[in-house]
Amino acid sequence: MPPGDRPAARNDHPIIRGEGGVNDDFPQGSVWLVGAGPGDPELLTRKAERLIARAETIFHDALVGEGVLGLAPPTAQLVYVGKRAGRHSKDQKTIDRLIVEAALRGERVVRLKGGDPAIFGRATEELEACRAAGIAVSICPGITAASAAAASLGASLTLRGLARKLTFVTAHARAGETLDLDWSSLADPQATVAVYMGKAAAEAVSRGLLRAGLPGETPVALVQNASLPIEQRFHTRLDLLPLAARTALGDGPALLLIGQALERTSRCAEAARRTLEA
Amino acid sequence: MPPGDRPAARNDHPIIRGEGGVNDDFPQGSVWLVGAGPGDPELLTRKAERLIARAETIFHDALVGEGVLGLAPPTAQLVYVGKRAGRHSKDQKTIDRLIVEAALRGERVVRLKGGDPAIFGRATEELEACRAAGIAVSICPGITAASAAAASLGASLTLRGLARKLTFVTAHARAGETLDLDWSSLADPQATVAVYMGKAAAEAVSRGLLRAGLPGETPVALVQNASLPIEQRFHTRLDLLPLAARTALGDGPALLLIGQALERTSRCAEAARRTLEA
Repeated sequence: MPPGDRPAARNDHPIIRGEGGVNDDFPQGSVWLVGAGPGDPELLTRKAERLIARAETIFHDALVGEGVLGLAPPTAQLVYVGKRAGRHSKDQKTIDRLIVEAALRGERVVRLKGGDPAIFGRATEELEACRAAGIAVSICPGITAASAAAASLGASLTLRGLARKLTFVTAHARAGETLDLDWSSLADPQATVAVYMGKAAAEAVSRGLLRAGLPGETPVALVQNASLPIEQRFHTRLDLLPLAARTALGDGPALLLIGQALERTSRCAEAARRTLEA
Repeated sequence: MPPGDRPAARNDHPIIRGEGGVNDDFPQGSVWLVGAGPGDPELLTRKAERLIARAETIFHDALVGEGVLGLAPPTAQLVYVGKRAGRHSKDQKTIDRLIVEAALRGERVVRLKGGDPAIFGRATEELEACRAAGIAVSICPGITAASAAAASLGASLTLRGLARKLTFVTAHARAGETLDLDWSSLADPQATVAVYMGKAAAEAVSRGLLRAGLPGETPVALVQNASLPIEQRFHTRLDLLPLAARTALGDGPALLLIGQALERTSRCAEAARRTLEA
């Protein structure tokens, strides 16, 4: 299809995208929320790479690795607005305000978020702050941690007939609150459950799912720092999960994957990896 | 950190990856299951782009678009092994066999799958077929349809305090079977549900969730051909979903997104898009 036949309203295809022209998808004073993926800079999308290369100001998380930030042009201003459980360096309202101010100054703003902005990324607050200020804001998706962990494990998160549902929850409770997940709906033997930021809550997750009826031998994988050189992978079972979580050192982001789909992983993936690396 | 300090077992970082050397992650006779993402070639990962560029044989789905296939080197053999509901051109066992045979001939094989191989991608069958034949096989993750649709809608799939759980199911029943999803566990007003391949099942999904107690005014978005120039987006409500599904023409892959998180989308996203495109 020649460029002229493409719908005029779409502007994210390089062939019709001019730099600064009418079809430019990143004009001055606009904001992109960009998914930085799990950490490995190779797991950025090509679109994220292009947007980062054009950014004048980049606001980034603690979860965005150095390899990704290394793709920013030397002229871009990098602003750390990291948040981690228990040590918020900037609160969400301050981040919203900084993004809006930069865009109102006419800068091209990238807000880099670990993983995918739409999945446990607090994207809504930033989208609404921009829209309230009349600023054009868009999302560039990223590889979410569950996809990255599955790739590292060499496993599928769904299995035809056996694991037909995939549920993502976060174990990151608000400060001072206890984790109140709906264990009975999560304890489905035909589902895979991915618990984001799950290491500190491993004991609560194990207890909650066991009480709700999942068998103790349900396979669990814990993946910390998925896709990075310091990645750690643990294969365990639901009743032994608290022990495995204590074995995983460091405080990098950790994902728990729970369900029958993980069973094949523990048998096969490590052997296969050794084959590749031999 | 200088290259020598990296853990020796990791080989997916360009700095230590030799072409054909001991740290080559794509030696002759190996297989990568590569996530092709939702369709827009810009939403491929950088890693997927690199693997495709080195492939000698590429087996691809119906869901992998021409833009992505255009990144294959002219010397690569492209083999269509597409499957769509009701018209399987090749069955899964045949695909498994073709992949194994190509790798055993010593070729570098890429199996390109729409979205992410680990999410409703039938990856397990192909992984196990390779492992059974002693072939090194790995996964490169991709942007899954739910992330792409959320980005197109300019919306988050999770909302702090309101939509704390995200569940993926597929409405693609086996031939001749009716859709038997567990509606009561899906009908959680604090969850977002993403129904893959959901258009044909829209009426069953609407009826199932309404009977299980979700309110008729629950916001729903239907996104067809997410990220492609022919993308269509519909904002509706659960009780009117069957009507919206009949309005969406064509047979491209369609995702249903259901839950309170979609409410803000319908108010804000289209206005914001007009701002950007003006």
